[in-house]
Amino acid sequence: MSKIAVLGTGSWATALSRVLIDNQNQIIMYGIDQNQIDDINVNHQNSAFFEDIILENEIKATNNLEEALRDIDYLLITIPTQFVKETLQQVKPFIKKRVTVINAAKGFDLGTNMRMSDTIRSVLDENLINPVVSLIGPSHAEEVVIRMLTTICAVSLDEKVAHDVQKLFSNDYFRVYRLTDEVGAEYGVAIKNVIAVAAGVLCGLGYGDNTKAALITRGLAEMIRYGMKKGGKLETYTGLTGVGDLIVTCSSVHSRNFQAGLEIGKTNDARTFMKNNKKTCEGIRTCQVIYEDAKKYDDIELPIINAIYNVLYNNHEPKREIQQLMKRELKIEGERY
Amino acid sequence: MSKIAVLGTGSWATALSRVLIDNQNQIIMYGIDQNQIDDINVNHQNSAFFEDIILENEIKATNNLEEALRDIDYLLITIPTQFVKETLQQVKPFIKKRVTVINAAKGFDLGTNMRMSDTIRSVLDENLINPVVSLIGPSHAEEVVIRMLTTICAVSLDEKVAHDVQKLFSNDYFRVYRLTDEVGAEYGVAIKNVIAVAAGVLCGLGYGDNTKAALITRGLAEMIRYGMKKGGKLETYTGLTGVGDLIVTCSSVHSRNFQAGLEIGKTNDARTFMKNNKKTCEGIRTCQVIYEDAKKYDDIELPIINAIYNVLYNNHEPKREIQQLMKRELKIEGERY
Repeated sequence: MSKIAVLGTGSWATALSRVLIDNQNQIIMYGIDQNQIDDINVNHQNSAFFEDIILENEIKATNNLEEALRDIDYLLITIPTQFVKETLQQVKPFIKKRVTVINAAKGFDLGTNMRMSDTIRSVLDENLINPVVSLIGPSHAEEVVIRMLTTICAVSLDEKVAHDVQKLFSNDYFRVYRLTDEVGAEYGVAIKNVIAVAAGVLCGLGYGDNTKAALITRGLAEMIRYGMKKGGKLETYTGLTGVGDLIVTCSSVHSRNFQAGLEIGKTNDARTFMKNNKKTCEGIRTCQVIYEDAKKYDDIELPIINAIYNVLYNNHEPKREIQQLMKRELKIEGERY
Repeated sequence: MSKIAVLGTGSWATALSRVLIDNQNQIIMYGIDQNQIDDINVNHQNSAFFEDIILENEIKATNNLEEALRDIDYLLITIPTQFVKETLQQVKPFIKKRVTVINAAKGFDLGTNMRMSDTIRSVLDENLINPVVSLIGPSHAEEVVIRMLTTICAVSLDEKVAHDVQKLFSNDYFRVYRLTDEVGAEYGVAIKNVIAVAAGVLCGLGYGDNTKAALITRGLAEMIRYGMKKGGKLETYTGLTGVGDLIVTCSSVHSRNFQAGLEIGKTNDARTFMKNNKKTCEGIRTCQVIYEDAKKYDDIELPIINAIYNVLYNNHEPKREIQQLMKRELKIEGERY
């Protein structure tokens, strides 16, 4: 039995806590929303996310960070990327013995645009943490929490620690595979959120399955092109953290990024959505990060990411951008990576 | 203006005929079902496939092969793979001048298990035909016929002829790209039908989006593994005839292969389906071809194709096969191709 502190009380925090409890571990969730904390501790529910699900009594939550972090073996990060760095700064003083940090966030740090593993290493004392492990792949919380068969990757530069996390989470319905291409996998799962926004816009505008398949295919090409430029491996993008996560995010009703795009497409306007949206939608911020960073390279083209950037940040009309994109840019086939 | 004979009066024949007519060509469909032929000529409909669609007057059909083939520039094959060879044998005596043969069938010849391009070359006099072009990619007829934006590949060993076919079909809603990896593309679009059957079985059994994404990802790995063994290129499988066609076939309600799997999954029994099914479902036959051929190679594993083979041809219980498949076989990640 291991003791795990789960940073966050959202849907993914809840689903992964259930996996860990099913595997006979001790967990405590740390959050800042007292209603959610009370709901978990008193009602054994997290009704903000899962209306009908009664959680195990062993799933507990607290707003006391020191209490959450006491004597832990693992620290599991399941909060939106924008809050990861500041939360880890609060975490830092309470890490007294060596722990393994497991990241489940998909995107980039708000200030530095660093990947999540780099962000974690930049804040926490490397002498007090084992190599970071990212737990990422095609895994909507809504299905994991009801124990539907899910596959995911434990990604780490250190395969031994990845193996350790693989054992911690693996069970009959939650199957964890190991991967050492941290760069490739973390860029893959981040970029797929932008392509999911694009797929949502396309569907919202009324395009069909043929067009969507074309967009996802060309989106994969952008993921590969940019990801390999950053040091990722081609085979990672044909796997769970590449095409796997891309497919599930572009086709599931559970995807917030796809839903965001869908709303933008239906109204043919991103301004209203950008002003009113309160939900975490990592693809919106990731689009900006990739767009800005890609300017450094004059030998890679990212037409889908550019189009979505123009829709989200330059008030371009979604219909016109997607039309131009699908008509003009989807022309390459059989390129070499 | 070119003259094109379209072999077949099915949904794909009808949709592609409309594309060709939209591009100001002359077409004639050849079929054997007199009801469909009359429906097309008299009612300007093909109501067996598209209930509400009125076709252009210029779309005509005949049961007279000699008439259909008179003075043609192109021969477009849109019949199920099992009938391609025997139909081409009937076609052969009427080919008097050089024509370009365009193949839109996805699968293998019934007797020889040859790919479609090889099958065409084996029957028709190579002095009387230009290099064969396969017109394949993520393209459900139901969307093409209503002019929804679709991308597809003109695949030929000879890029010049592919370019010619690209020009023949391309328009605002039907976008054709060129590819020269005939082997890779033809295996890709064939194998994806087997993976679509598997995805259907999985959904029919009640699995969710996470599991389906995992299955499609591992299915892509089998496609790449087997396709590269036959001489296909890795980059083809990340493109429209690989992952693109795989996605659309595994996720669209229009896919007959997915629907076949869905029915088998729901009833947890393939026998009834195999006995009663009258519709063309290329994945069923393709599964057998790949399964048999793969025995030659002891260095590639195809667990999904093997599982579906056992369901379809050895009466294994779908539920048990899928369970074992998802639990035992989906263990590799980040493999090198």
